[in-house]
Amino acid sequence: MDAISKLMRPASVAVVGASADTAKTSGRPVAYLRKHGFKGDIYPVNPRYDSIDGLRCYPDVASVPRAPDVGIVLLGAERAHLAVRELASRGTSAAIVLASGYAETGDEGAKRQARLLEAAGSMRLLGPNTIGLVNLTDRITLSASGALETDTFAVGGIGVVSQSGGILGALLSRAAARGIGLSKLVSTSNEADLDMADFVDYLVDDDSTSVIALYLEGLRHPERFRRATLRAAAAGKPVVVFKIGRSESGARSAVSHTGALAGSDRMYDALFNQVGVIRAQTFSDLLDVPQALATRRRLGGRRVAILTSTGGAGTLVADSLGMASFETPPPDEATAAKLRALQTGDHAVLDRNPIDVTLAGLQPALLRGAIATLLDSPCYDAVAVIVGSSGLAMPDLMAGAIGDSLPGSDKPVMAFVSPHAPQITRLLNEQGVPAFQSPESVTSALAAMKQHAAFRQRGASSAKQNAEAAVEVNDIPSGSLNEAQAKALFARFGVTGVREQVVTNAAEAERAARELGGKVVLKLLSNTITHKSDVGGVAVGLSAESIGARLNRMRDDVETVTGLPANAFLVQEMVAGGTELILGLHRDPLGTALLLGMGGVAAELFKDTTMRLLSADAPLSRDDALEMTRELKTWPLLKGYRGRPRADVDALANAIVAFARMATQLGERIVEAEINPIFVLPAGQGVRAADGVAVLA
Amino acid sequence: MDAISKLMRPASVAVVGASADTAKTSGRPVAYLRKHGFKGDIYPVNPRYDSIDGLRCYPDVASVPRAPDVGIVLLGAERAHLAVRELASRGTSAAIVLASGYAETGDEGAKRQARLLEAAGSMRLLGPNTIGLVNLTDRITLSASGALETDTFAVGGIGVVSQSGGILGALLSRAAARGIGLSKLVSTSNEADLDMADFVDYLVDDDSTSVIALYLEGLRHPERFRRATLRAAAAGKPVVVFKIGRSESGARSAVSHTGALAGSDRMYDALFNQVGVIRAQTFSDLLDVPQALATRRRLGGRRVAILTSTGGAGTLVADSLGMASFETPPPDEATAAKLRALQTGDHAVLDRNPIDVTLAGLQPALLRGAIATLLDSPCYDAVAVIVGSSGLAMPDLMAGAIGDSLPGSDKPVMAFVSPHAPQITRLLNEQGVPAFQSPESVTSALAAMKQHAAFRQRGASSAKQNAEAAVEVNDIPSGSLNEAQAKALFARFGVTGVREQVVTNAAEAERAARELGGKVVLKLLSNTITHKSDVGGVAVGLSAESIGARLNRMRDDVETVTGLPANAFLVQEMVAGGTELILGLHRDPLGTALLLGMGGVAAELFKDTTMRLLSADAPLSRDDALEMTRELKTWPLLKGYRGRPRADVDALANAIVAFARMATQLGERIVEAEINPIFVLPAGQGVRAADGVAVLA
Repeated sequence: MDAISKLMRPASVAVVGASADTAKTSGRPVAYLRKHGFKGDIYPVNPRYDSIDGLRCYPDVASVPRAPDVGIVLLGAERAHLAVRELASRGTSAAIVLASGYAETGDEGAKRQARLLEAAGSMRLLGPNTIGLVNLTDRITLSASGALETDTFAVGGIGVVSQSGGILGALLSRAAARGIGLSKLVSTSNEADLDMADFVDYLVDDDSTSVIALYLEGLRHPERFRRATLRAAAAGKPVVVFKIGRSESGARSAVSHTGALAGSDRMYDALFNQVGVIRAQTFSDLLDVPQALATRRRLGGRRVAILTSTGGAGTLVADSLGMASFETPPPDEATAAKLRALQTGDHAVLDRNPIDVTLAGLQPALLRGAIATLLDSPCYDAVAVIVGSSGLAMPDLMAGAIGDSLPGSDKPVMAFVSPHAPQITRLLNEQGVPAFQSPESVTSALAAMKQHAAFRQRGASSAKQNAEAAVEVNDIPSGSLNEAQAKALFARFGVTGVREQVVTNAAEAERAARELGGKVVLKLLSNTITHKSDVGGVAVGLSAESIGARLNRMRDDVETVTGLPANAFLVQEMVAGGTELILGLHRDPLGTALLLGMGGVAAELFKDTTMRLLSADAPLSRDDALEMTRELKTWPLLKGYRGRPRADVDALANAIVAFARMATQLGERIVEAEINPIFVLPAGQGVRAADGVAVLA
Repeated sequence: MDAISKLMRPASVAVVGASADTAKTSGRPVAYLRKHGFKGDIYPVNPRYDSIDGLRCYPDVASVPRAPDVGIVLLGAERAHLAVRELASRGTSAAIVLASGYAETGDEGAKRQARLLEAAGSMRLLGPNTIGLVNLTDRITLSASGALETDTFAVGGIGVVSQSGGILGALLSRAAARGIGLSKLVSTSNEADLDMADFVDYLVDDDSTSVIALYLEGLRHPERFRRATLRAAAAGKPVVVFKIGRSESGARSAVSHTGALAGSDRMYDALFNQVGVIRAQTFSDLLDVPQALATRRRLGGRRVAILTSTGGAGTLVADSLGMASFETPPPDEATAAKLRALQTGDHAVLDRNPIDVTLAGLQPALLRGAIATLLDSPCYDAVAVIVGSSGLAMPDLMAGAIGDSLPGSDKPVMAFVSPHAPQITRLLNEQGVPAFQSPESVTSALAAMKQHAAFRQRGASSAKQNAEAAVEVNDIPSGSLNEAQAKALFARFGVTGVREQVVTNAAEAERAARELGGKVVLKLLSNTITHKSDVGGVAVGLSAESIGARLNRMRDDVETVTGLPANAFLVQEMVAGGTELILGLHRDPLGTALLLGMGGVAAELFKDTTMRLLSADAPLSRDDALEMTRELKTWPLLKGYRGRPRADVDALANAIVAFARMATQLGERIVEAEINPIFVLPAGQGVRAADGVAVLA
């Protein structure tokens, strides 16, 4: 058994610094282990006691009769590393360090954390600054969380990994109150050694876990997380994450706009989407969504039957579902007839949805029949049952009637509990009928089931590495390239630029303009001045006649504004009739992302952009590129809108793939790269990179 | 005392159709009246009993000893009107009819409802299809809601009006469980007579109500609602509404785009914003937000101190606040020093926010001191306290410590309860410390306080009716106007159109083009063909030389496509250098709204539009118009963006006011009106209506 398995399921535990005073945090772990029925050996270690609650207490780790599988260290940051070293020397598999005062407090603490890690040697370490872990499947609590004061917990299929101990406690407590069954909970906190990815990996292989719920503050090892979550996807175990840091603003970067448009939280969104991780939008979704996914029931479509015996609450759910483009169609005639047949003499109106079987709330048999009828009906993909005040009056009968309907179908069945009715909420959840306290939860649960199904169908991006030989780039200089150099680089990978010529004076400009023909653009060409237009370095719509004089004036303007010599210029064809987009790279701690956005004002004022994280082992495919174009709010403009011609989306997709390939090949060497704008011409005419920046290391 | 006051606070109640079987709905009202301590006289009416639960029961209404203030009618829809007629004839002030089977079920039911209303005569009617009302202030329950099975309720300042009886029950039950104090609850349901506005009016005058919470499905009398909510605003009583029907799609209309852009739910948003009604975004906000507003504490700014003794939960709240642009700055040095002084020997890190006073969760005195310090600090406008597991261990001590801090300041203090801890949640709410179970609620509560404060500052729109004489419009024909007629109409009210001439043949067109000068636009002019461009009826960029031939081709094209004669055309100047917007009217049951949107694709793809409902007693002011322009996502384009010149926003505002004035003056006569596009030229150059449609009754 590997160290992590031993950590999750030890046969013996040493509790170093255990106290006999259960009012103290240091008194809790031993008390909780026994209270919740740990079957293995417990070795309290504390020189100040001979015994704790009838258990022999040892003066130090050395005197513990045999090497414990796990050591829980309750000492402060000043001494914890000593205990850790002792445990390591005994051959303990893993230690859990609860003390705070490490990396989370600053540089001094970071040093203490390094010392702690060094002391652990080859022994695995959970924490420090962790509340520990709880294995409900096997009734093993290696934690000081106050939530363990609760006597009983629902055991189920949801595994939880949290970067915060407080959140672990909150989830444990909230799940217990609502009868939501959990399997394992781990708080990784500082992640000096073991991190979130380690435990996602563990839960993927854990038979008692069917859904993984994560509380995430930030990833220290994005690639490991990526691999672990892809393993979960392959194993068909949904991963739901609540990630904070949502309000972080976009990153500023030197020469490109991409960073400001990307933003660190949007990078996480891109990652989650690419590995099929479902993002919980509210904190309560972090329990509600996994609870729905844990039922393993299949959502085949978007049509939901809402069964109610109390008007308003059904409407609440219908309205919330409608906003997420779920449908709540009325029953077809056959279904309505079956429902009517159930209603002895009652005149319920059955031509609408929510379906109001007026007395069902008070008649379990009728409720049972109605649910079965709706699950059986070809016009519905899921059934949401509204629990009204009858859920208060006779919780067991109602919950039983709803639970009975599960075996007959594998369509999702869930409940919205309208009044405050904790008992039936618990009973329903325990039976595998997700019972929600807010109408919005019904929607997010069903939406998550759809998202999970869609991802499984599509599968993770799996393009094979292009066979094409690597492009020669050794001759590309380091530092900030000028526009011509940048576009030349992009062109090597297959991104066509506008026709242009480099000129140094009026005469050359005039000649270039004649060769290009028609109206042209004149731009300053410089490796140092990146924001040309700010210094008067861009002029459009020039003719061969006017360009010479304009060049001289531009030189004077630029030199006056910048104080730098302006001795090179670009003369470019003017592109007409295309759609302007921006294509750029963004690098941050999470990795390198490719960003596609509508050009001009749309990208900035409407945030009309989409991103993909690039990964060497899953290069961006043509399908990925096409999908990106369709994700833009302005996609209608590309596909042809109000009589506009369809744009050359195929050429755009090729350009995206080429740009991604460049980023992957250049790797660490590419610091910034952006094409802004890239013109997408009408179908068949390709794309043109009209401006570009690149910074190489 | 008026009828509604008597209805809310009767001295005597007849319960017609009362049953002795409390398991039946008809058995509940009498039982609940007594259970919850009604002091007045109760007259059960039912020929089948002599007495009910020791109360004398009367065979019919006629034999009740004196005219009851209120009659609760529990008979079915077939007989309810008979009891209503009897009650009316006895001089009862108001009757409450619970039966369903009226307008909500279709035409037959609508007839029954008309019969019921007729039977009531001058007596006021609540319902039918209502669950009744609950007056907690005076312990009077005129309702059959199962939620009244609960023994005790928190009495407080939140008055509730619901168009659904089920929702009334849900709110009553949920508030009781959380210790949220309510004053009165009324379910208006079918609103055959008394409607939501009547009870908003009542609650505005009710001293025991400080906040009004509404569950709204649809307004039957928008103007009455408008007046009632404006009275509430004037009285300083916030109104919070949860409105369903959010997923309804935009209305289709014959000739203009405005309807599709408006949408019926957005009309409600416009109304709510204009009368200062706060819209709850989730169902739980419908209790959480009023609970925060009921504290009457003042939120002066956006800086929130988060006090925590458990890491993660504080971060949850900070993250949620950040997304709503609240700030959570670290304490300044003076504040940090005071906090440090409270911490006997403990090394808490006090240079950040959430402020983690490690042991505060376990030391009431420290908690009390820390809250007082933060409320006292000039760097915070509000304090959010995180309740962790200590809230489970010692709820009274913790709640007490937090409650004690209220008198010292009028800044908002609220709590996020991280674990499932119903007891402290209840205790806190009862003390006037809003205690929330989701971090998002802290944010929506504070956001609502800000919104309410902002509206009070600004006040409702109060422009005086323009003194200007009414514009002469009697000569304007009915029906669909052609483009020239429409723009002429708009021009009378002060909206400048593009220079244009009506022509009938090539020669006239050529002459017109010469007079206008430069490039011109040629358009088909027709009262019947509204979508010119779809039938080849628009050509741009024409010269005086080319226009003649183009006109002849256009005539042929249009006549081929439509089969209608094309004998009139418009020659227009081409407007350059302006920003395209759309300005239109939308009429629906809620009223007439003015819509301003970015033109071209932005309005449709990005929904970049804003609306104002027009009202004769509060004409759209210039400030309203300017505010609308600033509400556009594309406002930066108008105010001058990336070196673009500032647009003539003043002229745009004048055009908006003029268009609104036209709508108000024409009233019912105007069916549709839209300017699309209207060009806003650079500052000083005004606006130009480049195309227009209008349909008059």
